[in-house]
Amino acid sequence: MSHKNREEQTVQEKMHEIIFGAHTTQGWLFDMGLLIVIVLSVISNSLETVNGFEKVDGLENPWNDALFWASWVFTGLFTIEYALRIYCVKKPWRFIFSFWGIVDLLAILPEYLLLLFSSASGHASAFAAIRSLRLLRVFRILNLSWFQREGEDLGNAIWRARGKIVVFIMVVLIIVTIAGTIMYDVESTFDSESKFTSIPLGIYWAIVTMTTVGFGDIVPKTTAGQFISAILILVGYSLIIVPTGFVSAEVLDRKRRRVISTVSCPSCLTEDHDDDAVFCKYCGGEM
Amino acid sequence: MSHKNREEQTVQEKMHEIIFGAHTTQGWLFDMGLLIVIVLSVISNSLETVNGFEKVDGLENPWNDALFWASWVFTGLFTIEYALRIYCVKKPWRFIFSFWGIVDLLAILPEYLLLLFSSASGHASAFAAIRSLRLLRVFRILNLSWFQREGEDLGNAIWRARGKIVVFIMVVLIIVTIAGTIMYDVESTFDSESKFTSIPLGIYWAIVTMTTVGFGDIVPKTTAGQFISAILILVGYSLIIVPTGFVSAEVLDRKRRRVISTVSCPSCLTEDHDDDAVFCKYCGGEM
Amino acid sequence: MSHKNREEQTVQEKMHEIIFGAHTTQGWLFDMGLLIVIVLSVISNSLETVNGFEKVDGLENPWNDALFWASWVFTGLFTIEYALRIYCVKKPWRFIFSFWGIVDLLAILPEYLLLLFSSASGHASAFAAIRSLRLLRVFRILNLSWFQREGEDLGNAIWRARGKIVVFIMVVLIIVTIAGTIMYDVESTFDSESKFTSIPLGIYWAIVTMTTVGFGDIVPKTTAGQFISAILILVGYSLIIVPTGFVSAEVLDRKRRRVISTVSCPSCLTEDHDDDAVFCKYCGGEM
Amino acid sequence: MSHKNREEQTVQEKMHEIIFGAHTTQGWLFDMGLLIVIVLSVISNSLETVNGFEKVDGLENPWNDALFWASWVFTGLFTIEYALRIYCVKKPWRFIFSFWGIVDLLAILPEYLLLLFSSASGHASAFAAIRSLRLLRVFRILNLSWFQREGEDLGNAIWRARGKIVVFIMVVLIIVTIAGTIMYDVESTFDSESKFTSIPLGIYWAIVTMTTVGFGDIVPKTTAGQFISAILILVGYSLIIVPTGFVSAEVLDRKRRRVISTVSCPSCLTEDHDDDAVFCKYCGGEM
Repeated sequence: MSHKNREEQTVQEKMHEIIFGAHTTQGWLFDMGLLIVIVLSVISNSLETVNGFEKVDGLENPWNDALFWASWVFTGLFTIEYALRIYCVKKPWRFIFSFWGIVDLLAILPEYLLLLFSSASGHASAFAAIRSLRLLRVFRILNLSWFQREGEDLGNAIWRARGKIVVFIMVVLIIVTIAGTIMYDVESTFDSESKFTSIPLGIYWAIVTMTTVGFGDIVPKTTAGQFISAILILVGYSLIIVPTGFVSAEVLDRKRRRVISTVSCPSCLTEDHDDDAVFCKYCGGEM
Repeated sequence: MSHKNREEQTVQEKMHEIIFGAHTTQGWLFDMGLLIVIVLSVISNSLETVNGFEKVDGLENPWNDALFWASWVFTGLFTIEYALRIYCVKKPWRFIFSFWGIVDLLAILPEYLLLLFSSASGHASAFAAIRSLRLLRVFRILNLSWFQREGEDLGNAIWRARGKIVVFIMVVLIIVTIAGTIMYDVESTFDSESKFTSIPLGIYWAIVTMTTVGFGDIVPKTTAGQFISAILILVGYSLIIVPTGFVSAEVLDRKRRRVISTVSCPSCLTEDHDDDAVFCKYCGGEM
Repeated sequence: MSHKNREEQTVQEKMHEIIFGAHTTQGWLFDMGLLIVIVLSVISNSLETVNGFEKVDGLENPWNDALFWASWVFTGLFTIEYALRIYCVKKPWRFIFSFWGIVDLLAILPEYLLLLFSSASGHASAFAAIRSLRLLRVFRILNLSWFQREGEDLGNAIWRARGKIVVFIMVVLIIVTIAGTIMYDVESTFDSESKFTSIPLGIYWAIVTMTTVGFGDIVPKTTAGQFISAILILVGYSLIIVPTGFVSAEVLDRKRRRVISTVSCPSCLTEDHDDDAVFCKYCGGEM
Repeated sequence: MSHKNREEQTVQEKMHEIIFGAHTTQGWLFDMGLLIVIVLSVISNSLETVNGFEKVDGLENPWNDALFWASWVFTGLFTIEYALRIYCVKKPWRFIFSFWGIVDLLAILPEYLLLLFSSASGHASAFAAIRSLRLLRVFRILNLSWFQREGEDLGNAIWRARGKIVVFIMVVLIIVTIAGTIMYDVESTFDSESKFTSIPLGIYWAIVTMTTVGFGDIVPKTTAGQFISAILILVGYSLIIVPTGFVSAEVLDRKRRRVISTVSCPSCLTEDHDDDAVFCKYCGGEM
């Protein structure tokens, strides 16, 4: 967006800057306002399922009514925002069918669908499913300009370390498959009332244990099982330290390069030179 | 504080050095003494709620009496210290209304309020609430000069990484909102005795699970629920490694800069010298 | 394998490149296909133990039949692959008795053994044990060329940090031995219904607790026990940070060296050049 | 110990080299042998408390007899080793009253004390306490030359980061004190059957929760309590990343300096110079 001739900006351009950008004060305020509305609507929608706030046929419930109207207020705000977004982009259809355009639509659609379903009776389960869909609007936070700028480094670090993370998860999955199988064999052999009733359940237990979650709903009862558990736990406890090191190295490496890039060559204007460089590494000119 | 003419220091200045500073031996001893009194008073106050130490109407309990008197001794010490602090600062009112001044006042006020309430009978719940307030004096540890000097680096690292931490927490909150909603839908659909009775409870469960706490009070019973749990756990297990890397990089980066930036050669003006260098490593000139 | 004269490659050489290599597109596709077959066969085999899919005498179960035939299809594919591997290596016997050759054989052997056992009745327990052995084929993922290339860095980092990891695990084992013994003494003395029935069980509990797994099947009931637990937990929480630092340092150190050591200037022989340098940053000579 | 004239070493010196050193093959074998004996004796002694291996009055138990004799064999070996250590050190009394000398004595003393107690009947509890003391010999692993060399770096890193670790633990303790108090107030007010029966128990729960152990023996039942728990968990999850970064930085910093120290000044022979140093930073001589 052109920043130079602010006076000459059209209303459309001005709004685009506010809604899609975060570098102006108004843009930042818009982002923060939207964030608050998203959070409040998610809280409001999730409260509808809490006992005491729930709608019960034939009973008056002022709390449920309040939540019902709040939900419509939020949907109204999102609808206005959606319309404004379509209005101020240059190519509306491209926006509508873009990823974030669809996410924005999904944030308002379920509420209107609920209107149709509530008139038609007897679709309780479909009703509940659509009601839950509204909570997907929490994803919209990821699209806030403010969030995207702050989260860029985190996202980049994860992206560059993705190969390592995939390999790490696969090693974990191989270990839990073996451990889950062994535990199923051992526990179901020695303990007739074993809770390890199948290999997939054994693998579920191994994941819960190795990652140090430890629900305690399924626990080894036999001495052999407890011994194998102890080994699995120690392996999990030692393993977690490895990928951490890789991400640290990745972030630091990038940080160092960024420091480097402040120096630029006077001849060819390239950046990314070391601090002690005497000649440009790209054009050979003196620095 | 002037360190040069120790003899000429007034009593007020001397006390200020001891109470607010940690660079003298007396200041360090004062800090340690205060730390011990804070810890002992917190232990003493928390013991009052333990069964056997509690006050029961119409019964003699020597333990409760001991704790009662101990509490007054501690409050007495804190009151004297508060008076001394006000006495030795140059602008008393500024101190009293400063953040730490209010914390210091809150450390002694509840005890005196309890005196009022214990005479007026029948305010058991307000009584208990005020009694708990006394434990807030544990915050005073954060104000010890010794603690603030040691914790400075930690605080700075957290402060510089705050943007990343906020983004990280928000990503976690988005994931647990989605996961909690899905688990509520899945579990309450397939399991009629599901403990996932509402979406907020589902989100609470997702937080407990994803952070690897795993209480085990609410656990998935259906195969679908266990499968989703396993994925959530693996995501949480992989995610924690990312911010760790950022803090490591932050600390290391600062460490390197501090070493580099402190010393520079008086002859050739180069920097990057070690703290223990006697001669410049580039020009050989004395430093 | 010679890459230069592709036309002149024999069928044997070509297949070797596909099956054992990952640098060609076909090799990568072969690896991915094998990965999918391994994962599907593991899922299929583990489902056989799930209630509802299990074989029950005298009852028709179409699900069990489907899993039975799927298992044979997978074994058929692994058998063909095993034969191809033997065919295309230059020294077949060396491959057969190599570590990965044995792993490949173990991936198909159990299925054929099951055929023998299912005809002979009444070996239920041996039958189950052999059936579980088939899941060991999940290890074959570690031998995929693709996996080995991606996992090399992780493996190297663990290998170089192995001394530290061993020492770390031993320190953990020493602490849990002491903690488990103390907890057994304390809990069995003060609580007559203590679940700490033996020292090995106390050590198992200490491992589960110190690594923050926390199943909750065995928990301290006495105040003394809870106090010791709290200390053990804080020690475990503080300890985990140490080896993480070592792996981070190891990875970063290697990263730096790799960047530095690869390129050196042909004119002035200085090193420490970036990979994308065209001119030497010290003498300006072409690289 | 002198390595030059091996022939001239006395038996005493030779033994000292084997028992106290780890740089010779025999010394390494001695260390490994001792490690195995310590581990076996700890396993053997801990098994004595397991149901089925325990001594029951008036009943023959071959397992208990085996463990009894094994225990004496181990004690015999430790006694011989203790005698040899005293024999081959130059100042025996200094060794006996040194820290590790006392640890060595404590490894054998309990067994002999048990002999006295088993003849005198009716001291079951003292008997059990002394029996447990034998397990303290697991500490002897820390004194193995092999272990001390490998663990030196870890120990140094922890030692240099001790200030940060202490501050970190104190911050954790402050948070759990506040959280435990609030949870006690909230849960005991809204839930009449609350398991949060006292503030110290609330603090114990907060430690178990914040460190992600999560036993599940005490869990919040009220909505307010669950909300506070969720916040405490997220704080704990975010906090753990900070000290990790500090240890990483500490280890890396030391690693970098060690790399530096390979260059030494030709004039004054000092080490610890940077790679790009042209003049010695200590004497100013050209390098």
